[in-house]
Amino acid sequence: MAWNVYLAGEIHSDWREQIAAGAEKAGLDVSFSSPVTDHGASDDVGVAILGDEADSFWKDHKGAGVNAIRTQTLIRDSDVVVVRFGDKYRQWNAAFDAGFAAALGKPVVTLHDGEFDHALKEVDRAAFATARTAEQVVDVLRYVIEGRLPG
Amino acid sequence: MAWNVYLAGEIHSDWREQIAAGAEKAGLDVSFSSPVTDHGASDDVGVAILGDEADSFWKDHKGAGVNAIRTQTLIRDSDVVVVRFGDKYRQWNAAFDAGFAAALGKPVVTLHDGEFDHALKEVDRAAFATARTAEQVVDVLRYVIEGRLPG
Amino acid sequence: MAWNVYLAGEIHSDWREQIAAGAEKAGLDVSFSSPVTDHGASDDVGVAILGDEADSFWKDHKGAGVNAIRTQTLIRDSDVVVVRFGDKYRQWNAAFDAGFAAALGKPVVTLHDGEFDHALKEVDRAAFATARTAEQVVDVLRYVIEGRLPG
Amino acid sequence: MAWNVYLAGEIHSDWREQIAAGAEKAGLDVSFSSPVTDHGASDDVGVAILGDEADSFWKDHKGAGVNAIRTQTLIRDSDVVVVRFGDKYRQWNAAFDAGFAAALGKPVVTLHDGEFDHALKEVDRAAFATARTAEQVVDVLRYVIEGRLPG
Amino acid sequence: MAWNVYLAGEIHSDWREQIAAGAEKAGLDVSFSSPVTDHGASDDVGVAILGDEADSFWKDHKGAGVNAIRTQTLIRDSDVVVVRFGDKYRQWNAAFDAGFAAALGKPVVTLHDGEFDHALKEVDRAAFATARTAEQVVDVLRYVIEGRLPG
Amino acid sequence: MAWNVYLAGEIHSDWREQIAAGAEKAGLDVSFSSPVTDHGASDDVGVAILGDEADSFWKDHKGAGVNAIRTQTLIRDSDVVVVRFGDKYRQWNAAFDAGFAAALGKPVVTLHDGEFDHALKEVDRAAFATARTAEQVVDVLRYVIEGRLPG
Amino acid sequence: MAWNVYLAGEIHSDWREQIAAGAEKAGLDVSFSSPVTDHGASDDVGVAILGDEADSFWKDHKGAGVNAIRTQTLIRDSDVVVVRFGDKYRQWNAAFDAGFAAALGKPVVTLHDGEFDHALKEVDRAAFATARTAEQVVDVLRYVIEGRLPG
Amino acid sequence: MAWNVYLAGEIHSDWREQIAAGAEKAGLDVSFSSPVTDHGASDDVGVAILGDEADSFWKDHKGAGVNAIRTQTLIRDSDVVVVRFGDKYRQWNAAFDAGFAAALGKPVVTLHDGEFDHALKEVDRAAFATARTAEQVVDVLRYVIEGRLPG
Repeated sequence: MAWNVYLAGEIHSDWREQIAAGAEKAGLDVSFSSPVTDHGASDDVGVAILGDEADSFWKDHKGAGVNAIRTQTLIRDSDVVVVRFGDKYRQWNAAFDAGFAAALGKPVVTLHDGEFDHALKEVDRAAFATARTAEQVVDVLRYVIEGRLPG
Repeated sequence: MAWNVYLAGEIHSDWREQIAAGAEKAGLDVSFSSPVTDHGASDDVGVAILGDEADSFWKDHKGAGVNAIRTQTLIRDSDVVVVRFGDKYRQWNAAFDAGFAAALGKPVVTLHDGEFDHALKEVDRAAFATARTAEQVVDVLRYVIEGRLPG
Repeated sequence: MAWNVYLAGEIHSDWREQIAAGAEKAGLDVSFSSPVTDHGASDDVGVAILGDEADSFWKDHKGAGVNAIRTQTLIRDSDVVVVRFGDKYRQWNAAFDAGFAAALGKPVVTLHDGEFDHALKEVDRAAFATARTAEQVVDVLRYVIEGRLPG
Repeated sequence: MAWNVYLAGEIHSDWREQIAAGAEKAGLDVSFSSPVTDHGASDDVGVAILGDEADSFWKDHKGAGVNAIRTQTLIRDSDVVVVRFGDKYRQWNAAFDAGFAAALGKPVVTLHDGEFDHALKEVDRAAFATARTAEQVVDVLRYVIEGRLPG
Repeated sequence: MAWNVYLAGEIHSDWREQIAAGAEKAGLDVSFSSPVTDHGASDDVGVAILGDEADSFWKDHKGAGVNAIRTQTLIRDSDVVVVRFGDKYRQWNAAFDAGFAAALGKPVVTLHDGEFDHALKEVDRAAFATARTAEQVVDVLRYVIEGRLPG
Repeated sequence: MAWNVYLAGEIHSDWREQIAAGAEKAGLDVSFSSPVTDHGASDDVGVAILGDEADSFWKDHKGAGVNAIRTQTLIRDSDVVVVRFGDKYRQWNAAFDAGFAAALGKPVVTLHDGEFDHALKEVDRAAFATARTAEQVVDVLRYVIEGRLPG
Repeated sequence: MAWNVYLAGEIHSDWREQIAAGAEKAGLDVSFSSPVTDHGASDDVGVAILGDEADSFWKDHKGAGVNAIRTQTLIRDSDVVVVRFGDKYRQWNAAFDAGFAAALGKPVVTLHDGEFDHALKEVDRAAFATARTAEQVVDVLRYVIEGRLPG
Repeated sequence: MAWNVYLAGEIHSDWREQIAAGAEKAGLDVSFSSPVTDHGASDDVGVAILGDEADSFWKDHKGAGVNAIRTQTLIRDSDVVVVRFGDKYRQWNAAFDAGFAAALGKPVVTLHDGEFDHALKEVDRAAFATARTAEQVVDVLRYVIEGRLPG
């Protein structure tokens, strides 16, 4: 089967591209999906499509609703959810996605540096694996899809 | 992935055709489904296929049962449910479909004029987005499927 | 067991009181719940508690969110959902609740006059019974709870 | 019915006590539950009960597992989940709980200052209400349980 | 815990009374429920409460709807479902209840004579136990509730 | 989408072939599945594959288990379940399949002569439509799949 | 709330009594349930109640069916499932119960000596905690129920 | 439809190859999946990819987490789960997989020698069939997929 892997979380680094490139190089039968990673578009989508808002709370609300159509649909459709936590912003939506996926019974893989270990202990405990690098995520995917260890 | 979008509600205007045309023009990987929109067929299907009824209640009942085979199957199979409320008729079935979809965890998008905002406040609250025009629905679909804002 | 019956829909007539009085007179082991039936409170609750809104759409949205905490919780907790459609307003929320309950597998009983039969055919088809009077609803409850016919 | 309300999130302020006091004063039929709010106990529980760990990652992992027995059980048992985000720490577990609750169909109420509105937009969108003060949460509970506005 | 046991099927013999008497004698903490076993009331309930029907199909349909409010609610609320097949009538509703209960994950116990073994092989296979006598059902309940063998 | 239709029940007449022929003639995008309709094979499969049994109860039990692998899988995979009741045998497995499908939320269509209406009233009530002929089933499928009335 | 804790697995040592005694001493609001721990009764129950069998496979099968009525009901009703693996017998049913509970989203606590760590690694990974002694299980329960560390 | 069959359990004999060869020879439309059957890789995967561990418990834990991404995903995606118990090792993970699959409603087929009948009675009872040889499993698959008996 082709595996659907949803890549949640941080949108300010190229970790998704690294994983996609690694998976392609490894020839894995995997299809990646993700939230919209264009930060500006993601923030503005509500008002850009559905009309302006005077109040920033409702601007955010409108946009978050449209983004949730995409993210919840793709998470429900996925086999594995990888959640990346970076050092910028609070990324509460990444943790929300992890909780949402976990409650649906989706295997979650977290990806973050050791400095966040304590803050992320509940999320990591709910995850099936915690990776430090995009390369490790590719290695995990190669193993779960093809049964091969790296190297 | 190809997105399945169910278009529920009003059957007396061409909003479905507008959305389909807009999605085709935009080249979206989307498949639309809908209830039977031939009003006469939808009303008569029970007695036309399964035998006449003396009592209009049971004529309606029979027809509604057959229509529900289609609508419930397609709603369960869909990724997104768009529900259109127009100014003709009471359209309680549109609201019923919205409630049915919401309880199944399907993202709902409502489509209606501002004059119905107060009457539809509970439905809109359960929806992920409220659009005013078919074009906005296409814009929402383009964004959630391809991550691109209009224009 | 004590039966939990949720009374959804119309809030501008005393049908709930009639059912409750009838059930009490019949000595049924039943507990009724309902949305907030004070129309003004129901409309204003969002801004009354969570702060004012300049835009009526968001005023409605806020209020509908708070009301949904109550209604969705009580519907999920109920054994039977009775949905009343009256002749005032569009009552799309009643139909929404019926769809929500149906998708959760809750038995729905509709309560409305014959003039709405055609408009409500999809909702009635999804219901387990359609009653015309509050007394009939009490009779249905007596039967399903105690196995006794009226009279 | 007695309502079960789970109070998730921040453990470094007295917001839970404020809500409990307010609910008691209002005479609400509500039962509150929460994670273990003794920060030290919560951090140490894994090793304190199940044996020491040389590696802090596994110390956290052990503790988070024990805490999850409590939190997941209480969230599943709750009718409403209130999630508080404060200004200390990253509180990813609060957002995780919100996502977990949302996927289970539990109504979520968020509680946080306006400064976090943008960062929490996805969580707030999934919530049924966003409150700024403990008093507002009590008001929401009074309304959804008893149907009364404050004052 | 108190066990809820639903007794489905045949309504023309006193097997329910035998089981109830046996359970009471054994002092089991069990609560029994059942469909309405007054055959006439069960057949007539639809038209007796909700109005006459000219067509016997719809008379049956109305009655079956009201009965289903009771039976589906009690089956969902039960821990164990005992299904009795007798030699009168076709008792398709007994088999329907067994299928309904099995799909919900409820343990089913069938109760019938050996002459029906071949005809009931699919139902018996889905059941957790097949009993020949009411006494055996009581013995099964004593064992599963109290862990004691008979005698 | 291609519709999966499971044809449950009677295996001693050619109703499945009639439906399949009618659907093919109508050019419907539908895929039919069914239990094994070779009566002898269906009865013997347990002992034929898994070893002989001295006791006919266990011979049936073994066979029913193997048949259930097929039937439960195909029912879960289906969009619509058609259940045929004929005049031969008791066909309790047909009613069991109907209950199983109904509890899973699958639209059920029953197919039987009027003489069984009273005996099947509970099953028909749970069904979305009751047909008398294979041709009517084809007409229902044409309508729900393509939205066209016959003729 | 009172917590329901199911104690699965080994029936040849007094670990259940140790946990119950510890919980009682600690004054925990907990209710324990378990499979029937009388080994002879558990093995014989099928034939003792439902009639003799010539073939030991079917004797076991009958008994296992009756036992499953109890175990599956109690597992579904529990908040936490503790699974004990001892050194006697293969105890595949303990592992089966752990898998069954895990798929239902129940928090699992395993209880076994270190010598089985490698053999139980998949079960331990699915568990929320792994304890070595009955006292540790009591400590875990005290913490998750009352939030108190031991000592 | 193509059937997805997950082959769980023993990894130290060639039973999977026998089943695959038999299915291929029989021309069955079936797709097999399995855990990683390279024992060394399966044991080492956690530390090989995600970093070394000083403590063997955590080495196992890490590896089991990665393996569970594969096994739980494939079990959820499967139509039938075959579980093989051999005479080597305790194979608690095989029983865990059987319980996990059973709770998800997947038909389970067990495959083991008669010497384990008593130890596996609970697992066999939850299974739809118990086979002694790989050839029997192929025969079961041929029958459930194509409706043909062997020979």
